[in-house]
Amino acid sequence: MPVNNIEDVRKNVKEWKKEGLTVGLVPTMGALHAGHLSLIKKAKETCDRVVVSVFVNPIQFGPAEDYDKYPRTLDADEKLCNSEGVDIVFAPTPAEMYGGGRLSNDTLTYVCPPFFYVNKLCGKTRVGHFDGVCTVVLKLFNIVQPDYAFFGQKDAQQVVIVKKMVKDLNVPVQIIQCPIVREESGLALSSRNKYLSEEGKKDALVLSRILNNIKSCYLKGITDVSALKETAYSFLTDKHDLEYLEILDKNTLEEKDKADDDTIVLIACRVEGVRLIDNVYLGGK
Amino acid sequence: MPVNNIEDVRKNVKEWKKEGLTVGLVPTMGALHAGHLSLIKKAKETCDRVVVSVFVNPIQFGPAEDYDKYPRTLDADEKLCNSEGVDIVFAPTPAEMYGGGRLSNDTLTYVCPPFFYVNKLCGKTRVGHFDGVCTVVLKLFNIVQPDYAFFGQKDAQQVVIVKKMVKDLNVPVQIIQCPIVREESGLALSSRNKYLSEEGKKDALVLSRILNNIKSCYLKGITDVSALKETAYSFLTDKHDLEYLEILDKNTLEEKDKADDDTIVLIACRVEGVRLIDNVYLGGK
Repeated sequence: MPVNNIEDVRKNVKEWKKEGLTVGLVPTMGALHAGHLSLIKKAKETCDRVVVSVFVNPIQFGPAEDYDKYPRTLDADEKLCNSEGVDIVFAPTPAEMYGGGRLSNDTLTYVCPPFFYVNKLCGKTRVGHFDGVCTVVLKLFNIVQPDYAFFGQKDAQQVVIVKKMVKDLNVPVQIIQCPIVREESGLALSSRNKYLSEEGKKDALVLSRILNNIKSCYLKGITDVSALKETAYSFLTDKHDLEYLEILDKNTLEEKDKADDDTIVLIACRVEGVRLIDNVYLGGK
Repeated sequence: MPVNNIEDVRKNVKEWKKEGLTVGLVPTMGALHAGHLSLIKKAKETCDRVVVSVFVNPIQFGPAEDYDKYPRTLDADEKLCNSEGVDIVFAPTPAEMYGGGRLSNDTLTYVCPPFFYVNKLCGKTRVGHFDGVCTVVLKLFNIVQPDYAFFGQKDAQQVVIVKKMVKDLNVPVQIIQCPIVREESGLALSSRNKYLSEEGKKDALVLSRILNNIKSCYLKGITDVSALKETAYSFLTDKHDLEYLEILDKNTLEEKDKADDDTIVLIACRVEGVRLIDNVYLGGK
């Protein structure tokens, strides 16, 4: 059975710590797929005890976003976690996490990552999203007090921002980043892929194709960022609503003129109205 | 010798925790006086080990405020701490706390308390002050990982906001609030009293006099908030630049029409250009 309340998680973790065991946290919004599974497996390898949180976090969704529609599959998530030997599935209600009141920065303390990291890529259209992410992640860190926490490279901007938060606020946790898991077709796994038709899934391959093509151009010696971006446009049709294609420093998210091995290429594109993201490191891994 | 770096503090605390000892933190900006001393004594009574941090936190000062001028008396502070049996005096540099770069919310992750708690009292004139306070307090909590942290009631808005942060972010620490310490004259102790002349110290008594008078009016049965506020004006002369006088709920900082035993009266007033604050609970304590 999932644990719903904070105090029960704390009690368990306290016991583990007394025994000198290490604790890993995999924070998720549920609708678990093989991408999450790879995080859980990595956590099991790294830590003595593993907590998976399943919480669709209201404060990271904008008013026009898919909070209500977001897939919720707790029973299946729990089965998956059990079969992987997860010690606790922590699935709190919004009220358990935020109390009963209205959720706004008039009434709640927020963690606000630096504008420089936020005002670009997904943060440009998803205003307040990363404040909501950092706030819930810090809450989960404070509840579970993990030694390690596991995040997917899929949400690349998120990982950079969470790492920055951990550094800036001296949070005593080590962030482990795990590679993107893809379908055989190349499509990056995402809980939002459930919204796509079969046709849409084919159209969605444009994201990984654009990234792969930029990477192979880079490996052939093209480093000019404008030239690399140019290569994308031949892939796009009227099925694709490109939101951004950026080529940045993978650690600082700074713009560069020339790509190098510390470069990440990030893309966001709507297909059938579904917002999909993907990315690739030019320097491998 | 004070400990200057974060890793040394962490190492010590880790050893203490291994031994099952409880840890108390008294966060200060130094220039320690008997008010701080009362916090340290309370911490020594409550905890097995006590850390006093001495850090004039740049990000809680506005550009026109007294960051450069703020009194720094580390040698004396350390002696006082030693004589009280403090285990660690943690006195980091700004660079140790924030890195070498520019300090702004373009470059750093901030903790932002709710607008409702911030947009009043001291927060009204000290824009960004409580973001800076919460950010440094959370950093100190994450570095020291105390079981208990000790704050003075003198900075009443600060304590309410820190308690709110702890609740909202599930920070695993218990906040202990200690009463205001006063000179025999009634003047609340403050590191900023050092800026005052002898004459100014006399003029500064107006703060505690106004508060005491409101409290005795309340005890005589006057509960109407406007009427209670009115009583203050006869005390003020041209030596006093009143910034605010507010009568609020002591836990939520909500306005009320009628005072009751959960009410706090807060005052801020400049004397000789020095900004002084004071407060009193109408319900005792």
